[in-house]
Amino acid sequence: MTSNPTAAVILIGNEILSGRTQDINLQHIAEHLCAVGIQVCECRVIADIEAVIVDAVNTLRHQYDYVFTTGGIGPTHDDITAQCVANAFGVPLLQHPQAVKLLTEYFQSRDVEVNEARMRMANVPQGGVLIENPVSVAPGFCVENVYVMAGVPRIMQAMFANILPTLEHGAVIYSVTVVCNLPEGIISRPLGELQEKYPQIDLGSYPGKSNATSRVSLVARGTDQDVLREVLADLEGLVGRFDGEVVEVKAGF
Amino acid sequence: MTSNPTAAVILIGNEILSGRTQDINLQHIAEHLCAVGIQVCECRVIADIEAVIVDAVNTLRHQYDYVFTTGGIGPTHDDITAQCVANAFGVPLLQHPQAVKLLTEYFQSRDVEVNEARMRMANVPQGGVLIENPVSVAPGFCVENVYVMAGVPRIMQAMFANILPTLEHGAVIYSVTVVCNLPEGIISRPLGELQEKYPQIDLGSYPGKSNATSRVSLVARGTDQDVLREVLADLEGLVGRFDGEVVEVKAGF
Repeated sequence: MTSNPTAAVILIGNEILSGRTQDINLQHIAEHLCAVGIQVCECRVIADIEAVIVDAVNTLRHQYDYVFTTGGIGPTHDDITAQCVANAFGVPLLQHPQAVKLLTEYFQSRDVEVNEARMRMANVPQGGVLIENPVSVAPGFCVENVYVMAGVPRIMQAMFANILPTLEHGAVIYSVTVVCNLPEGIISRPLGELQEKYPQIDLGSYPGKSNATSRVSLVARGTDQDVLREVLADLEGLVGRFDGEVVEVKAGF
Repeated sequence: MTSNPTAAVILIGNEILSGRTQDINLQHIAEHLCAVGIQVCECRVIADIEAVIVDAVNTLRHQYDYVFTTGGIGPTHDDITAQCVANAFGVPLLQHPQAVKLLTEYFQSRDVEVNEARMRMANVPQGGVLIENPVSVAPGFCVENVYVMAGVPRIMQAMFANILPTLEHGAVIYSVTVVCNLPEGIISRPLGELQEKYPQIDLGSYPGKSNATSRVSLVARGTDQDVLREVLADLEGLVGRFDGEVVEVKAGF
């Protein structure tokens, strides 16, 4: 759709694959990247298994401009992400002096024992840059284009807020949405023609319900606001042509 | 963890990668597969791009016993999953006589026009077996070990309910959860030792909050109830040994 920077997300954790935990990190990351013109092209949800994590990191970091991981950087035995990222890059996992300082100060100020398990959270692959964690101090880190964050959503969100301004932004991807009362089966063909008319726009059709009434959301996404305004007019015209009603218009600009 | 059947899930749709839509299909599928002893090992969220879909289907169908896809089987131009699955298997996409019959009857009974776009939903890769859709009739389908379902959750769930009894089930994966008031940093080491003591169990530690009070959920998952009962006793003992309080115990058997 654009030549914007690209990204992949890796959600690491058995709890997502077992259905125990409903992930909400992908949507947060995707929404915020989108808003600064970075396109999430792929997401993988993988288990806490070293070979699997190493393989996913190495595959995706070569394929996309940015890779964001969530999960597996706490103090327990199942937190193996830092070691796996080090292995993926072929570098040792080292205690990061600044992370040691931050954690030691934090634990001491709260009268919490500084033990080996807790100090594991100061381990960072060689060359890694810390990502600040204003919620619970234990930092994330970045190695080249791979950003390693916590899995707990409020911690992940705080870390991600620190990362976002440091990324290379692309042309903002705007969207317009026309919600109508026509079934997809009627407007499918002219909608396909509209997609052909505007190849630079990503045009999607999403059926849904509102108070048991069927609704279809027609969503156009792209970087050119003028083109999107034309698409919006065409979409409204299309709905009118089939005697439909435009129930709602949302324009993200 | 077990020699149970394995599965991968592919969520197809730009709307998930843009952050527009919060997926809830993975959790539903994972939870229900888990309950019949089928282990979801991986999930990929991918865009509506032919080469990407074909590649994901072909990679994962050889790697796992089952592959479940959601999304992209409606009547609009962005619904390309059926064609992509046909391409992945190297077979033609054909109108399925039973699907044509079902859809035609359904449309006629509701006085809905039978048009080309709507009849696209009767297209199934050669050799495909229909998956009944009790919500909106347009069927999903299965080719070998690949199950293709709708993206709309209530339709996906209805299709999945029809698939589940037809799969080869494994040993049920049970779980026990001990929620305690100890921080991960204190119990990390003995927890790791417990994991080593019970290699056949998957032991996870998940921090969370309840009314602003920190809680940690210790979750043990496995197929052997007797072993899980031992693990449960050990977990309760562990919490007591560190002067912690067991706030809640959940045993899924």
